[in-house]
Amino acid sequence: MNETIETILKHRSIREFKNEALTEEQIHTIVSSAQAASTSSYIQAYSIIGVKDPVKKKKLAELAGNQGYVEANGHFFVFCADLFRHEKIGDWEEADIIPSLESTEKFMVALIDASLAAQNAAIAAESMGLGICYIGGIRNDLESVSELLGLPERVIPLFGLAVGIPEHHSDVKPRLPLESVYHEDSYNVDETSIKEGLDRYDETISAYYHARTAGKRSDRWTAQMAKMLSGKKRMYMKEFVEKKGFNKR
Amino acid sequence: MNETIETILKHRSIREFKNEALTEEQIHTIVSSAQAASTSSYIQAYSIIGVKDPVKKKKLAELAGNQGYVEANGHFFVFCADLFRHEKIGDWEEADIIPSLESTEKFMVALIDASLAAQNAAIAAESMGLGICYIGGIRNDLESVSELLGLPERVIPLFGLAVGIPEHHSDVKPRLPLESVYHEDSYNVDETSIKEGLDRYDETISAYYHARTAGKRSDRWTAQMAKMLSGKKRMYMKEFVEKKGFNKR
Repeated sequence: MNETIETILKHRSIREFKNEALTEEQIHTIVSSAQAASTSSYIQAYSIIGVKDPVKKKKLAELAGNQGYVEANGHFFVFCADLFRHEKIGDWEEADIIPSLESTEKFMVALIDASLAAQNAAIAAESMGLGICYIGGIRNDLESVSELLGLPERVIPLFGLAVGIPEHHSDVKPRLPLESVYHEDSYNVDETSIKEGLDRYDETISAYYHARTAGKRSDRWTAQMAKMLSGKKRMYMKEFVEKKGFNKR
Repeated sequence: MNETIETILKHRSIREFKNEALTEEQIHTIVSSAQAASTSSYIQAYSIIGVKDPVKKKKLAELAGNQGYVEANGHFFVFCADLFRHEKIGDWEEADIIPSLESTEKFMVALIDASLAAQNAAIAAESMGLGICYIGGIRNDLESVSELLGLPERVIPLFGLAVGIPEHHSDVKPRLPLESVYHEDSYNVDETSIKEGLDRYDETISAYYHARTAGKRSDRWTAQMAKMLSGKKRMYMKEFVEKKGFNKR
């Protein structure tokens, strides 16, 4: 196993960082790594906001559901889907690109582009011995996050990425059995075998929590999912993204 | 610079592969690497279809716009947004999760999850000396791709990933200036400075094409984008994803 794959496989989210800011060089390396990711038709439909201002970080932490590690870290990045630049280009080049910018296809492209870039940033950071945590919590209130970061239309914050020197190391969390996620040639829709895979996974996850909480917790993954998905979370999203000029047609 | 960052920064898409299939071990490492990526609230809302059947690969290559390297490679992965498993869990756990599954929020979560996983797969493959190429072309006709791969509802193919031993090495394609993509504390909406960054990039890109085509090509990036976005591509997407149970409310 090479170093890169070792870095990838030992990933765990870090939620406690030393009080030490990333250097400009580290930030540069992380952003350059993000930019090196593949991009659909060369569109590069994303932007990254690095948040340094302590007042803004504090506010972001509150918006994300009082997650302290949004404020206390080495650096905080916000990854955004971005077609603002492209709208400007349409003006300058006198091209009718609005239907395209507003399509669900380009919404998907921007999300995929931003996420590929973010994962490069995450891996680059981890390869330098830094810890990372994705912060979906910023999607609790994207209107306020957009205002805080001065985002124009056709830009949507997708998630944060907290980076810093780990204060502690948590355990790697087990993933679904490979066979539950990876199919060959055809999707396996057989309910019995799906159930069998998830039952097996539930046992793994129960044991995982049990061992780490001295028996206090032993949730099954499927029960976690049912509970989490029963919450009708962030149902404002459709209206919000359309208002910002995405996913409209 | 460590090995991982070196791998990330030297990425280029490979479109010609040696006629040699990936080993089962390589496939396993790539899929395990994908699975190690972060996932929103542990949801793991994606599936990966490995396509080995030569008839299916040929058909996929046609659907993707006659791209030969979709057929001729070491292995072809299709990354899918997937909430099918979760719908089953809702049934088993008697939980009302349909509004959540059909939300734009969860559509975004599934796209982000799948993309983070895919980029881990890409980096893992490249770290092993393999080449990769993302294939957005499969989105030309997702209905046919879905049928070909036997995908149930609540599963949407997002992109392919061709992997194999590179037959040739292309050059690294320059990205937007870092300052065009990376902002600190606030998005820079100043049109003059945006234009200045893109003008500079246009010069880089013109020179890049000029040098690589013995002067035959010297497109500016902005002109490429205006042209590409003028094409109203894949406008069926909104209806398609809704039909599959995503992005409905």
